Amino acid sequence: MVTAPTTLRDIARACGVSVSTVSRALANNPAIAKKTRETIQAIAKELDYRPNAQARALKSSRTDAIGLVVPSLINPFFSAMAAAIEDEANQAGYATIITSSGENTPKITEAIEALRARQVDGIIAVPHAKSVEMLEHVARSTPLLFIDRYIHGSNIPAVVSNSAPGIKAALEALASRGHKKIGYLAGPQTTSTGLERLKDFQRFCEELGLEQIIHHGGYLHEEGFTGTQKLLEQHPTALIAGDSMMTFGALEALYRENVDIGKQIALVGFDDFVFMRIQPAPVSIIDQNVEEMGRTALRNLVASFAGKSPPEGAVVQTRFIARESIEFSP
Amino acid sequence: MVTAPTTLRDIARACGVSVSTVSRALANNPAIAKKTRETIQAIAKELDYRPNAQARALKSSRTDAIGLVVPSLINPFFSAMAAAIEDEANQAGYATIITSSGENTPKITEAIEALRARQVDGIIAVPHAKSVEMLEHVARSTPLLFIDRYIHGSNIPAVVSNSAPGIKAALEALASRGHKKIGYLAGPQTTSTGLERLKDFQRFCEELGLEQIIHHGGYLHEEGFTGTQKLLEQHPTALIAGDSMMTFGALEALYRENVDIGKQIALVGFDDFVFMRIQPAPVSIIDQNVEEMGRTALRNLVASFAGKSPPEGAVVQTRFIARESIEFSP
Repeated sequence: MVTAPTTLRDIARACGVSVSTVSRALANNPAIAKKTRETIQAIAKELDYRPNAQARALKSSRTDAIGLVVPSLINPFFSAMAAAIEDEANQAGYATIITSSGENTPKITEAIEALRARQVDGIIAVPHAKSVEMLEHVARSTPLLFIDRYIHGSNIPAVVSNSAPGIKAALEALASRGHKKIGYLAGPQTTSTGLERLKDFQRFCEELGLEQIIHHGGYLHEEGFTGTQKLLEQHPTALIAGDSMMTFGALEALYRENVDIGKQIALVGFDDFVFMRIQPAPVSIIDQNVEEMGRTALRNLVASFAGKSPPEGAVVQTRFIARESIEFSP
Repeated sequence: MVTAPTTLRDIARACGVSVSTVSRALANNPAIAKKTRETIQAIAKELDYRPNAQARALKSSRTDAIGLVVPSLINPFFSAMAAAIEDEANQAGYATIITSSGENTPKITEAIEALRARQVDGIIAVPHAKSVEMLEHVARSTPLLFIDRYIHGSNIPAVVSNSAPGIKAALEALASRGHKKIGYLAGPQTTSTGLERLKDFQRFCEELGLEQIIHHGGYLHEEGFTGTQKLLEQHPTALIAGDSMMTFGALEALYRENVDIGKQIALVGFDDFVFMRIQPAPVSIIDQNVEEMGRTALRNLVASFAGKSPPEGAVVQTRFIARESIEFSP
């Protein structure tokens, strides 16, 4: 019987420490306590670990660091994404260098150039359409994986969510409660997420025979706030906010206008953060599972280092979580 | 007249680009667009920039990367801290390597060892009392600055907030509205923040002649939730939550128990996140100014690289922000 050779990761798992600790313990690095080193070395022997010279040579040209470019860590969607990527990278023995590309003024070119100057082994980035030429250029020499959005016309792989199942289930839940006129706060039509969510909303409204009122907003709290005020003038009985920041804006507008959520209007938001539940009527959510998106992206990026092919993209399905914010019939 | 010599930072400011872009443009690095390089070189000449050989030699032994250890990026306090540090580091030409030490099971030793293995120029860490020996050892060879908490008995410098002004102003605001019996959700007494905030609460309650009810919680949402339920049994007219996570727990408990915030009970929380305002009665806050804490820590750490002395600590004052959650008299 042929078994796969023992890897550093196997030893790390057996010892309950990180890959980098194992690597340093086997190199007899005094940064690791003597007793820990000896334990790890004994377990490595027990597991019949043989350092693979080829792998080590290959490895030596690497920095064991990956770069992550997100618009902003203040946005809870991106901080949850960063947390998942950092944790998964740490388990795989990689350090995470985080850079922000700016929420409104994209500094993505500068961020990516700084990461390349540090010779990171690969980059995960939330892309911006206007930077596509530069990104294509980078992808020729550095493994690059997009997350959250893809860029139309570019073949750089991306880990994205599919909004259709979540939006369909949300609209079905609203229709079954007797809602007929649904307001939608749409994201920017310059991003793949903004475009696809609106398309899905329109398609499933038509299928279910629901009247649509659409406000073209953006991905900002303020746009959710003013958009909600405008939509209310047309008296929808339910609102769907097309991203988490606009969900916060919608909540704030409904509170200020004294519209009772879950009694006078149904509200569905995006992304399942704890704050969505900490409301008098917990908010129903179309959840993208950002943690799975982040972990998948990191795993696919790292897997690409061994081969010579670019990292693989992935599609994570959204799901609908019904809560009190929709529990009434108009 | 003697003027200070032009630095890379001066040029970066004049050009509106990052220090790392200037540095690469002056090195004629083709990663920077030709036109941009030429513009930056022209401005450098105009500002009479002369590369300082000594500084460059010193610099060459550096990685221009700093390490940041936070308990978790999911906690909005720490993600806001990370965002401020990353932005300030980027402006100063440093990359930020972020590692999480775990919210409940501190993996701080492993996180710091991994950062040292990467030879970061310095480390900013939210410390954990049990790791003090290891941290003292690290501080002898790597510039180390604590943030958020200091460790009693250790002389490693820290950037912390002073809870006294904020807690005093909050209690004065409650007393002036006729509150006499105040409930307090205390943080863990194993951290400097947990200890000092409780001490400040007790001291100012005594000075103002207010009755105190104290629940010893922790820094978890769940502890704020159950603590609030327990405090309510003793019928306080106002509650103060000793950190942001417990503020979320208190909000959730009050909503579930149908206690009307700002009408039946006054609520004061910690840390001014946007979510605190997106509530039917926006929550009054004792604000630590985490952004200033993060930026100060980064500046003090970087300033220490030039000299041979350890980085300087700092104390940022808290302030009280009164909102609707306290606008009633019992």
